[in-house]
Amino acid sequence: MKRKAYRLADIVARFGGRVLGDADTTVSQVAALDSAQAGHLTFLSSSKYHRQLAATHAGAVIVGEADAESTQLPRIVSGNPYAYFAKVSSFLNPAPQMLPGIHPSAVIAEGAQIDPTAHIGPHVAVGAGARIGARCAIMAGCSIGAGVTIGEDALLHPRVVVYHDCVLGNRLVAHSGAVIGADGFGIAMDEGRWLKIPQIGRVVIGDDVEIGANTTIDRGALDDTVIGDGVKLDNQIQVAHNVRIGAHTAIAGCVGIAGSTTIGRHCRIGGSAGILGHLQIADHVEISSFTLINKSIHEPGSYTGIFPFSGNGEWRKNAVHLRHLDGLAKRIKQLEQEIAAFKSTHQGKETA
Amino acid sequence: MKRKAYRLADIVARFGGRVLGDADTTVSQVAALDSAQAGHLTFLSSSKYHRQLAATHAGAVIVGEADAESTQLPRIVSGNPYAYFAKVSSFLNPAPQMLPGIHPSAVIAEGAQIDPTAHIGPHVAVGAGARIGARCAIMAGCSIGAGVTIGEDALLHPRVVVYHDCVLGNRLVAHSGAVIGADGFGIAMDEGRWLKIPQIGRVVIGDDVEIGANTTIDRGALDDTVIGDGVKLDNQIQVAHNVRIGAHTAIAGCVGIAGSTTIGRHCRIGGSAGILGHLQIADHVEISSFTLINKSIHEPGSYTGIFPFSGNGEWRKNAVHLRHLDGLAKRIKQLEQEIAAFKSTHQGKETA
Amino acid sequence: MKRKAYRLADIVARFGGRVLGDADTTVSQVAALDSAQAGHLTFLSSSKYHRQLAATHAGAVIVGEADAESTQLPRIVSGNPYAYFAKVSSFLNPAPQMLPGIHPSAVIAEGAQIDPTAHIGPHVAVGAGARIGARCAIMAGCSIGAGVTIGEDALLHPRVVVYHDCVLGNRLVAHSGAVIGADGFGIAMDEGRWLKIPQIGRVVIGDDVEIGANTTIDRGALDDTVIGDGVKLDNQIQVAHNVRIGAHTAIAGCVGIAGSTTIGRHCRIGGSAGILGHLQIADHVEISSFTLINKSIHEPGSYTGIFPFSGNGEWRKNAVHLRHLDGLAKRIKQLEQEIAAFKSTHQGKETA
Repeated sequence: MKRKAYRLADIVARFGGRVLGDADTTVSQVAALDSAQAGHLTFLSSSKYHRQLAATHAGAVIVGEADAESTQLPRIVSGNPYAYFAKVSSFLNPAPQMLPGIHPSAVIAEGAQIDPTAHIGPHVAVGAGARIGARCAIMAGCSIGAGVTIGEDALLHPRVVVYHDCVLGNRLVAHSGAVIGADGFGIAMDEGRWLKIPQIGRVVIGDDVEIGANTTIDRGALDDTVIGDGVKLDNQIQVAHNVRIGAHTAIAGCVGIAGSTTIGRHCRIGGSAGILGHLQIADHVEISSFTLINKSIHEPGSYTGIFPFSGNGEWRKNAVHLRHLDGLAKRIKQLEQEIAAFKSTHQGKETA
Repeated sequence: MKRKAYRLADIVARFGGRVLGDADTTVSQVAALDSAQAGHLTFLSSSKYHRQLAATHAGAVIVGEADAESTQLPRIVSGNPYAYFAKVSSFLNPAPQMLPGIHPSAVIAEGAQIDPTAHIGPHVAVGAGARIGARCAIMAGCSIGAGVTIGEDALLHPRVVVYHDCVLGNRLVAHSGAVIGADGFGIAMDEGRWLKIPQIGRVVIGDDVEIGANTTIDRGALDDTVIGDGVKLDNQIQVAHNVRIGAHTAIAGCVGIAGSTTIGRHCRIGGSAGILGHLQIADHVEISSFTLINKSIHEPGSYTGIFPFSGNGEWRKNAVHLRHLDGLAKRIKQLEQEIAAFKSTHQGKETA
Repeated sequence: MKRKAYRLADIVARFGGRVLGDADTTVSQVAALDSAQAGHLTFLSSSKYHRQLAATHAGAVIVGEADAESTQLPRIVSGNPYAYFAKVSSFLNPAPQMLPGIHPSAVIAEGAQIDPTAHIGPHVAVGAGARIGARCAIMAGCSIGAGVTIGEDALLHPRVVVYHDCVLGNRLVAHSGAVIGADGFGIAMDEGRWLKIPQIGRVVIGDDVEIGANTTIDRGALDDTVIGDGVKLDNQIQVAHNVRIGAHTAIAGCVGIAGSTTIGRHCRIGGSAGILGHLQIADHVEISSFTLINKSIHEPGSYTGIFPFSGNGEWRKNAVHLRHLDGLAKRIKQLEQEIAAFKSTHQGKETA
């Protein structure tokens, strides 16, 4: 299938920026600096890739103002080359259209309202009273519980599960294996046995959210679990009951967030980090990968708690002292006192 | 749908405890202290929430003996308010009944025995010789392997997979995406290539177990993987082959337990913790979140190994010394020796 | 069903090694040392299990050369007892044959090419143009995207999802809940909102790969994500976009690998480890469980970064100093300088 090609002039007419070099150069696809070929548009995200830029076979490149003259290739100059690239790539790679209609193998319960422009794939199950908005695509094998509401233009990849009564916003993208609205981990100890606490809250998800493959978001125990507008969740994240995630926060893979924690807006959380329960995380907080947050963070900023790796032998030699750090600290204090005592004694003698 | 309301007097008649204030107060639902309204029953789990208690709009509240007089609201006094709340909530929020019978889109292999009171949802596949007990609900898209046995009153949410020959107890609740009985990670190195070790054990699960969304429990390599009665597993937990988990142990999300480890009864394991393979963990052990257990624990108690987080700059400044801890310890020792040498020399001179 | 029994003589004829003791001893199944019975073949993987060997009820045992005389049981002596055991177990426990053909409930899009010897289970969905090779088994509820290519003899357990255009090699084993080819986590910040970067690469998987339950492998952003021949991935692993994993590398459960990292051949990565993005890991690198790798590793060897656990109180007492390590180090330096100053002063006086 031949791809449609666009002139750089057409692209800047649509997305802004300015062209340097031949504005009639055409591109039909985006590519990375080192694998791009003629007809490909690439981008320079950072000046540290100048060497790759010099060697690229791309037809054209998107660069920042500072790099406007760093290549002779036809180029688009933009204040934010990576965002510009995202826009052009989305334009050149539109999501495949799925045909409206309900596959005959899907099972739709009574009272479900499915917009006629929505696509319901094979082996989908939709519960009673669920509402699915215009132009949604619910792909093969998804399970949509009773009473669920899904906005418009949502895309649920195969095998997503949404439990009953959850509310999903417009333009949601949920990847395969995501589970939205399973019971939170609410148990009470009663004479040596755990009693289950019914989880009667919901999950409420804003607009423009993306949820990665096999990520789980538990329903609230009593009140709702809430995911704000524009939140981006990578794969295999666990969001416990009654967590609230502020708008435009991005969370990388394998993060676990314990119950009733509130995360601010515009936060960025690195892979495999953890956040304990009942904490408050301010807006604009960055948390490094592999870091456990075990108390609230009230100030924007970057926070880290990573044990540095080393060769096994070196690690063993050093780590053994961690069990005696308090002892080491006391020995230092003791030494300081002894030195001070010496000083006062001998200083006295010397000045005497 | 109007909810049924109960008098506090009715509730204590059923669940014990005593009423203070108007025993004819009716409640129809449970709620959190700060979102409760008239007709809601809330609870005080800890005295630290007295401020919220003072502000609650709840119709009634469950309190402990120590807090019996901490509010003028109609209240139920119980020795264990949280467990009491669990019981009342379960009573007010019964699981929805699912109709007995097999959905026509389900595929049931020959020789499978399904109790006529069981519910088999759409797109379920049940393998040859599987047995599913009375009042089980196997929801949409579950896959039950050949020879699997499931007890009575089990609830499998949509898209649970159970591999062949596993044995699941009564009242199991398994959430979506859980995978029970996949092959353990058994491989042997043979001249630069990995050979697969067939995993011929099963997973055997006791009664009253709950398994969270996307949790995986691998089948045994030779013998079985065993989950005891009353065990509660949160989401995204990985239980490797031949692990044994003792009764009434609760494990929070994202925990990984490596092969052949035995965990005692009544343990509590925090989120994202890890336990290496071939270890023994005693009964009544608590393990903190984000802690790796790399040797057996023979004594009950609480165990932790968390790297404390701090601001990035502070972390960087401190963490660099971890690669030199052994050096620091040696320098302290050296200082101590020098001081001791001084002391013996100068003490001598001073007392001389 | 009675199992077929084989003489030790038959087994060594097929797999090599030599028999000590009665070569007519028959075995029909493998078992662990301590649960083996007559008719079972067990193995001694390490000399540290001599006590269990003495007590075993096995009919025969596989031992290494060094242990050839450590039992009087009929035995097979092999240079690599564990690999030998793997081969015999695979021989005694062949994968169940699945009947060729397409289940009537499966939904196969136009233009998909499915080898007539392949098995397509119930509720499978296969997209347009997908190609599935000879003797593949695609079990219940799998979703195979448009344009996917699967080699020969692949086994996809129930509910595996493969997104469009991915390429899977021969003899792949993928466990339930695995998601291959979901979008990588590519987002660009644009005036306070995240823009999605279309993920137009694929996942390309070599031959003889195994993928654990609920493991996720994201498709490339621009180029492909590549998994080499013979790679073994345990459960709940997250492989981000554009990661490349070299041949015969084995990765334990819950590991997260961030984007664009390249891992060498023959590496071994422990459970819940993490590797940041854009790193290079050499061949033959071993990474311990729970270790974060945050810079490239250019030398083969074993690497660790684990915070040692201890009792809660002890941990608290010691960990507090981690926030002041730099201060401790400075105090040690200060002490050293003071001692040195003393020395030069008093040494002088003493020798005077």
